[in-house]
Amino acid sequence: MKKADMSGDCDFGLIGLAVMGENLALNVESRGYKVAVYNRTTEKVDALMAGRAKGKNFVGTHTIEEFVKAVARPRKLMMLVKAGPAVDALIEQLLPFCEPGDIIIDGGNEQYQNTERRTKQVEAAGLLYVGCGVSGGEEGALKGPSLMPGGSAAAWPHIKEMFQSIAAKVGPNNDIPCCEWLGSGGAGNYVKMVHNGIEYGDMQLICEAYQLLHELGGLTNDELYDVFDDWNRGDLQSYLIEITRDIFSVKDDQGGSDHLVDKILDVAGAKGTGKWMSQLALDLGVPSTLVTTAVFARGLSAQKEARVRASKRLNGPSAKSNPEMQAIAKSLVGDRAEFVEAVRQALYASKIVSYAQGFVQLQAASAEHGWGLDYGAAALLWRGGCIIRAKFLDRIKEAFDADANLENLLMTDFFEKAVEDSQEKWRKVVAVASIMGIPVPAFSTALCYYDGYRMDRLPANLLQAQRDYFGAHTYQRTDKDGTFHTEWIQLRKEPKA
Amino acid sequence: MKKADMSGDCDFGLIGLAVMGENLALNVESRGYKVAVYNRTTEKVDALMAGRAKGKNFVGTHTIEEFVKAVARPRKLMMLVKAGPAVDALIEQLLPFCEPGDIIIDGGNEQYQNTERRTKQVEAAGLLYVGCGVSGGEEGALKGPSLMPGGSAAAWPHIKEMFQSIAAKVGPNNDIPCCEWLGSGGAGNYVKMVHNGIEYGDMQLICEAYQLLHELGGLTNDELYDVFDDWNRGDLQSYLIEITRDIFSVKDDQGGSDHLVDKILDVAGAKGTGKWMSQLALDLGVPSTLVTTAVFARGLSAQKEARVRASKRLNGPSAKSNPEMQAIAKSLVGDRAEFVEAVRQALYASKIVSYAQGFVQLQAASAEHGWGLDYGAAALLWRGGCIIRAKFLDRIKEAFDADANLENLLMTDFFEKAVEDSQEKWRKVVAVASIMGIPVPAFSTALCYYDGYRMDRLPANLLQAQRDYFGAHTYQRTDKDGTFHTEWIQLRKEPKA
Repeated sequence: MKKADMSGDCDFGLIGLAVMGENLALNVESRGYKVAVYNRTTEKVDALMAGRAKGKNFVGTHTIEEFVKAVARPRKLMMLVKAGPAVDALIEQLLPFCEPGDIIIDGGNEQYQNTERRTKQVEAAGLLYVGCGVSGGEEGALKGPSLMPGGSAAAWPHIKEMFQSIAAKVGPNNDIPCCEWLGSGGAGNYVKMVHNGIEYGDMQLICEAYQLLHELGGLTNDELYDVFDDWNRGDLQSYLIEITRDIFSVKDDQGGSDHLVDKILDVAGAKGTGKWMSQLALDLGVPSTLVTTAVFARGLSAQKEARVRASKRLNGPSAKSNPEMQAIAKSLVGDRAEFVEAVRQALYASKIVSYAQGFVQLQAASAEHGWGLDYGAAALLWRGGCIIRAKFLDRIKEAFDADANLENLLMTDFFEKAVEDSQEKWRKVVAVASIMGIPVPAFSTALCYYDGYRMDRLPANLLQAQRDYFGAHTYQRTDKDGTFHTEWIQLRKEPKA
Repeated sequence: MKKADMSGDCDFGLIGLAVMGENLALNVESRGYKVAVYNRTTEKVDALMAGRAKGKNFVGTHTIEEFVKAVARPRKLMMLVKAGPAVDALIEQLLPFCEPGDIIIDGGNEQYQNTERRTKQVEAAGLLYVGCGVSGGEEGALKGPSLMPGGSAAAWPHIKEMFQSIAAKVGPNNDIPCCEWLGSGGAGNYVKMVHNGIEYGDMQLICEAYQLLHELGGLTNDELYDVFDDWNRGDLQSYLIEITRDIFSVKDDQGGSDHLVDKILDVAGAKGTGKWMSQLALDLGVPSTLVTTAVFARGLSAQKEARVRASKRLNGPSAKSNPEMQAIAKSLVGDRAEFVEAVRQALYASKIVSYAQGFVQLQAASAEHGWGLDYGAAALLWRGGCIIRAKFLDRIKEAFDADANLENLLMTDFFEKAVEDSQEKWRKVVAVASIMGIPVPAFSTALCYYDGYRMDRLPANLLQAQRDYFGAHTYQRTDKDGTFHTEWIQLRKEPKA
């Protein structure tokens, strides 16, 4: 590191001027801070300076050295670039110009293991490192995102005021910032990853509700608009329900009078965080089935051509044209208004299970890494600014305020009652979808989790017997301590011919 | 490598004398080969030589050098030790005593990436390397396992005769060995991993059938014995159904007159291959939902204490005591005999979906790695010897013989008809389980896959609209090429207050 006595007077530096970075820089500047910006393709710097930053308190820079030196010590230098090797390369470029105590912040959707590694690397160089989840999309970045910082704890006092000032605000007086320190190492990235995984689940659940209402209920887009508008006034009130409502009102912007949603190809992409959360759940041995189901549903959606071929060949149930099955379906979910309400309850109960699973995974990860995560804080950060922001997160915050070590959201009075009140309709919706041939993988897996979780006895006793039979894997007993193995084949009844 | 002219006259060497290794060595010797054995804890060598190997054509060795030199060139040296670093350490120990052309074989449940790496490493040293999946448990190892070799193609002619001689045999004349060369690099381990993942799915499906028959149908263990005996005479005929039948006949071997299965703790372990297959499916973007559901079900079973607590608090459906719901359930699945048959059909259809998913994942992996896998060969290897051996694999082999590039098993006349014939009962079983509160995650996810796969239109259009709304992720259209982005918020209908 060079000795430098030429640091500038910017309060903050931001590298990476794609839409998220540009909006975040504008947000910081709007709170009274002077901001240095840099981008590898320097034309973007010039375009910003001549455009949206014109007349504002910005310093545009064209080299890493110039960028670092434009910022006052201890420097707060934030990267919003593609996760992975690009971040490592940038850290290597920044370090030679930085000085002890400077803070490098990664705002990308980074894998937490990379942040754990980089925190050690940057701390070894005498600097501080923060991996900060940022959620809220373009608009959130500009007007108030949810920020989920973790890494070098010593960095927090230096960035707290600025980060809390730019974050979304919630609470009765709109003054509680959606930004709190989450823990050491990769804690911030992990919380952001779980946020995104829950977002995957929420979106899949909404899609299943849409398909049921559209295919089975026969609702038009205008009727769906009214349903989601209505849902957004109750327990389900949330950003994703709100934008879903909006989507059903938008007409084709390429001409014609159709609704745009009907013109969109049913092939969904995935950017990685949902997959990571699923893979890490598998490593931890915790059943985060909602996010995994949502990722797999996107995978199946991507097999569009295979699905089109299969649709011409594989027949569904005859239930749609079978009066007896029609009658059973009707007896299960009633008339159209009752069906809409049943789907709402299925969505609500499934959503509670999804969040319960997400917090169980956070707890398992925190225990494994010794982060000492504050789950209530995580719930608080998700109350505003981010994609999954919802009324219902207030209840989760309250649950963890009441019991910091709560083992499962379902074990609180509020959520227990919410699920129990919804379960009859939820069950009937899954039953009718199964009979009628509408895939509801997320509704189903949520229900199976609920039913499995509340079973003191699952059929894994048979599974253990099988494993011991064919592989001598041994088993435990319900009535004695120890590990047992049985020579099953010698004790079995002689099979009939 | 040393020049050695002192190689012994053993045909085969085996390292690692746990039960699988010992049995495999005995199997090889029984086919007329002379076998050298070694184990790190050399007492195991002495115990084998003084025990089961006594009077047989074995050479017991006490050092790696002695072991290698006991075998004739080109040496076939097989390791059956714990997967992972122990294999790397052993290769390092073997290499100094080996000579060009010698063949090192790993028979463990190794991650395919490790075998890819080691194949390159060992080939660079002038030797050949094989990663060979071995299935069949203790008994299979001794009497005829299923062997799934891949790695250095030049090794195959040297080991083919021996490996095919010890493998299980199938076919009308019982002369088709369950051992064929699968491909380069980690192909053999990958096929074994998918085998194990399918095994996870099969076992979970059987457990769900058991729970339904036991909890809802009220069948006793003796009745379950008869049901599984019956099932093992039809389409479901397989090793796992057979041992499940046997298990229901075994009485407590710790005293008492109860059935042993009722004394076993319902906490299932997992050894890794099911988890790996799930994680790799997520990487490939292919929806292998059955194996993942089975892994998560084991994870939930392991939360025994949490489940016991939850069982005291969370209420299930009132359906069991509700005459109206009882009537609906009865109308769906009929009397007890009809219910048993419905569960059988649900199991059969779900199993077909599970195998279809496994082969889709094999195809995706083969395409990614350029292995050129022969899927019919994989099906053939699973017809005998291994844990998932089943009548039904003959049909899979036939399907790939008829079309080597078959995109999905469901797209063949046989399996299409089998699923279509079963689907009404399958749907009703999932519906009744949902209403009655019995978790059937694997039956459900299989049904959702079937229904999703045969849909030319899934609700992912809405999901793409959501992603474009909040994150400008863009979308494709059904009617025009290109990538589109819409400023949704500007086109939306102004929301009501």
